[in-house]
Amino acid sequence: MPVVTIRLLEGRTLEQKRELTKVVSEAVSRIAKTPLDGVHVIFEDVQRANWGRGGVLFADRDPR
Amino acid sequence: MPVVTIRLLEGRTLEQKRELTKVVSEAVSRIAKTPLDGVHVIFEDVQRANWGRGGVLFADRDPR
Amino acid sequence: MPVVTIRLLEGRTLEQKRELTKVVSEAVSRIAKTPLDGVHVIFEDVQRANWGRGGVLFADRDPR
Amino acid sequence: MPVVTIRLLEGRTLEQKRELTKVVSEAVSRIAKTPLDGVHVIFEDVQRANWGRGGVLFADRDPR
Amino acid sequence: MPVVTIRLLEGRTLEQKRELTKVVSEAVSRIAKTPLDGVHVIFEDVQRANWGRGGVLFADRDPR
Amino acid sequence: MPVVTIRLLEGRTLEQKRELTKVVSEAVSRIAKTPLDGVHVIFEDVQRANWGRGGVLFADRDPR
Repeated sequence: MPVVTIRLLEGRTLEQKRELTKVVSEAVSRIAKTPLDGVHVIFEDVQRANWGRGGVLFADRDPR
Repeated sequence: MPVVTIRLLEGRTLEQKRELTKVVSEAVSRIAKTPLDGVHVIFEDVQRANWGRGGVLFADRDPR
Repeated sequence: MPVVTIRLLEGRTLEQKRELTKVVSEAVSRIAKTPLDGVHVIFEDVQRANWGRGGVLFADRDPR
Repeated sequence: MPVVTIRLLEGRTLEQKRELTKVVSEAVSRIAKTPLDGVHVIFEDVQRANWGRGGVLFADRDPR
Repeated sequence: MPVVTIRLLEGRTLEQKRELTKVVSEAVSRIAKTPLDGVHVIFEDVQRANWGRGGVLFADRDPR
Repeated sequence: MPVVTIRLLEGRTLEQKRELTKVVSEAVSRIAKTPLDGVHVIFEDVQRANWGRGGVLFADRDPR
């Protein structure tokens, strides 16, 4: 029943999300002692125009 | 003033969201005794590649 | 698997939360066509010192 | 280290987000006495079909 | 109708929250061109035992 | 810069949170290829009276 939300700048691949889901869910299940089957992981991909740090958007900061 | 967030796998129609907004807002207003006009409902559509349960993404689990 | 979050000013009773959980979960299951057993409802009780509208905290606005 | 989330109906420009990020981050840093460099601001653009108030979606309410 | 969430380590005073609510709400109203009266600001006070950075909880990192 | 939120029923110890913070942050850093120092983990402890599944609060379901 735990719900884990992972908010990241967009650009991660399906393969990275697949591995993160597996590793994080197993860690939560093992350490928090809760059935693996009930662990939810939700990714929120955030665009560079929608995230700022230190008062500056990543879109402006990191112009890749 | 209550804020209700409904996070679902993507794929619900406008008609389903319209009905959910109406029914959930009325229930919150009636049961929590707060004016209907102040109840907010926000939907978050989550892609199958962004939600996992039991360590496995829905994109891998439920390959529709 | 839907996750519903209900953010309210604190002060609702267990009985109100119990009824809201039942009514909202059933509405989500029926309208979004998803098994009732997978619907999560999470309440976030917010103190009046932690919520403002129109630039004014409810603690200052509504001094009950 | 504060994390500020700003949820708005979609349609704000990059320039509006840029200015909001700057002004809000500086306010949080100054008032909460925390280094500017650690303040995060994340925008969530919500579609009119995904936000309702008073039981009615903005998509239905405000048909621009 | 915008909803701003400010997540901070616990310890801010009512006076700091009052000022933040005022300043942030006015900035959002002015820059996003939305009525002040509809702007919500919600604070989430996070305990040092509930927030980590770089793999280390603030409770362990900053042992005030 | 990733922000991970872990929502769990209350009752986890500081030691469990410490280990989860370490393991999850390292996994996110390694798999998402982002500096460990920028990874945030935030726990939200939810009371049994504030979380329901299948229309029933955990407070009613699991009366420990």
